[in-house]
Amino acid sequence: MIGIGAGDPEQLTLQAVKAMRHTDVFFLLDKGEAKADLTRLRRDMLETHLADRTYRVVEERDPERDRSAGGAAYSPAVGDWRSARADIYERMIAEELGEDETGAFLVWGDPALYDSTLGILEEVRERGTVPFAYDVVPGVSSVSALVARHRTGLNRVARPVQITTGRRLAEEGFPEGVDDVVVMLDAHQRFRAFADEDVDIYWGAYIGTPDEILVSGPVSEAAPRIERLRAEARERKGWIMDTYLLRRAPGER
Amino acid sequence: MIGIGAGDPEQLTLQAVKAMRHTDVFFLLDKGEAKADLTRLRRDMLETHLADRTYRVVEERDPERDRSAGGAAYSPAVGDWRSARADIYERMIAEELGEDETGAFLVWGDPALYDSTLGILEEVRERGTVPFAYDVVPGVSSVSALVARHRTGLNRVARPVQITTGRRLAEEGFPEGVDDVVVMLDAHQRFRAFADEDVDIYWGAYIGTPDEILVSGPVSEAAPRIERLRAEARERKGWIMDTYLLRRAPGER
Repeated sequence: MIGIGAGDPEQLTLQAVKAMRHTDVFFLLDKGEAKADLTRLRRDMLETHLADRTYRVVEERDPERDRSAGGAAYSPAVGDWRSARADIYERMIAEELGEDETGAFLVWGDPALYDSTLGILEEVRERGTVPFAYDVVPGVSSVSALVARHRTGLNRVARPVQITTGRRLAEEGFPEGVDDVVVMLDAHQRFRAFADEDVDIYWGAYIGTPDEILVSGPVSEAAPRIERLRAEARERKGWIMDTYLLRRAPGER
Repeated sequence: MIGIGAGDPEQLTLQAVKAMRHTDVFFLLDKGEAKADLTRLRRDMLETHLADRTYRVVEERDPERDRSAGGAAYSPAVGDWRSARADIYERMIAEELGEDETGAFLVWGDPALYDSTLGILEEVRERGTVPFAYDVVPGVSSVSALVARHRTGLNRVARPVQITTGRRLAEEGFPEGVDDVVVMLDAHQRFRAFADEDVDIYWGAYIGTPDEILVSGPVSEAAPRIERLRAEARERKGWIMDTYLLRRAPGER
């Protein structure tokens, strides 16, 4: 499993390039028209770094996730979706990979952070039907890429930082004792709930790509701008990947 | 400011190598005998990737941090230490860098996470005595490197993860509503407090280097082993850099 950074092809590590160059078969899961951009970006990486090598690419259609249950990022249907995806992984490994060959999944950002590939691969391994060993190559996460572009840190001196989902932020607000919160998987711009508080936002979409958009400032001022830019970009490209850091003045409750 | 990954020289990103190759002067702050290894590792990186270029290296001694106040990771003396370090940065930039030259600080891991360089550089910029602009190149954090080596994720599905300090863990225990906690800057092995609970630990030291040590398992079983290995390594090398993830069974309180 190879972390390939948050979108900028130059965020690949030397270790990731080396691992790619030891790979016989790349497994790409296509999330449909909307994300064709991302599939192309990965293919471009392969063409750049493996021009002198032969390799195979196996593309599969990602199972559709049932989002009908109220648009929640993680409904009970997630379990079914994971199993369906595990079935696909299992079949790809069994049918497309030779005995002594090496396969790779290319994962955006860092495979450890809000990505399902690691858990699904482990599920396939536990089934025991196709034996394999694997390693994980860490990547620059979208979180690191976001704050680097804003030239700010994640935590303040001796203070914690929490990484959470838009849904949990909406349900629970700022976590107890934490003034720096990174929010992922937020399709509903939950940051708007903090417009009346002394909270700054550092927001970014398509980070590290030519489409990158960055906005920062007090939520009260930045939120309307983010809403507008986000809607325009989503309309134009058909999909959006964004994340943000909320930073509260210390001691605010 | 260039993030150079958690210790493995191959964790450098292509972007970091490119930035290094556009650098005229590297500023290295030496933390004394104990960390000479780390200074050498950085010099090796420069020799590997800039063999065909000329560049200058400016080494300065890091100011001593006053840790006499009970061994706390961050005592009131931190403010003084930061100012002393800002003085050094300011002088290095003013005296060692030509008008049109580019300087670089090489930061282990990701500059955004528990590293003071970004804050200190911003302090120098705010003083306004030496005008400069800067960018941040994100790196693979020690946190990402740790969990990659353990082949596990940071968060569980739709759940948060908190990154905090050993001191706060000791004072506050598991944060409310969080079952995955990454602990940094813990010189006192605070994980031992959880030996009676259903908590797993994923621990690592010198991650990505030839000295790497990894231990994982229930805290009750892993803690004595970590204590022994940690003491031995610290004795042998004179310094240690370690971090760990604590993972509690969901719903445990």
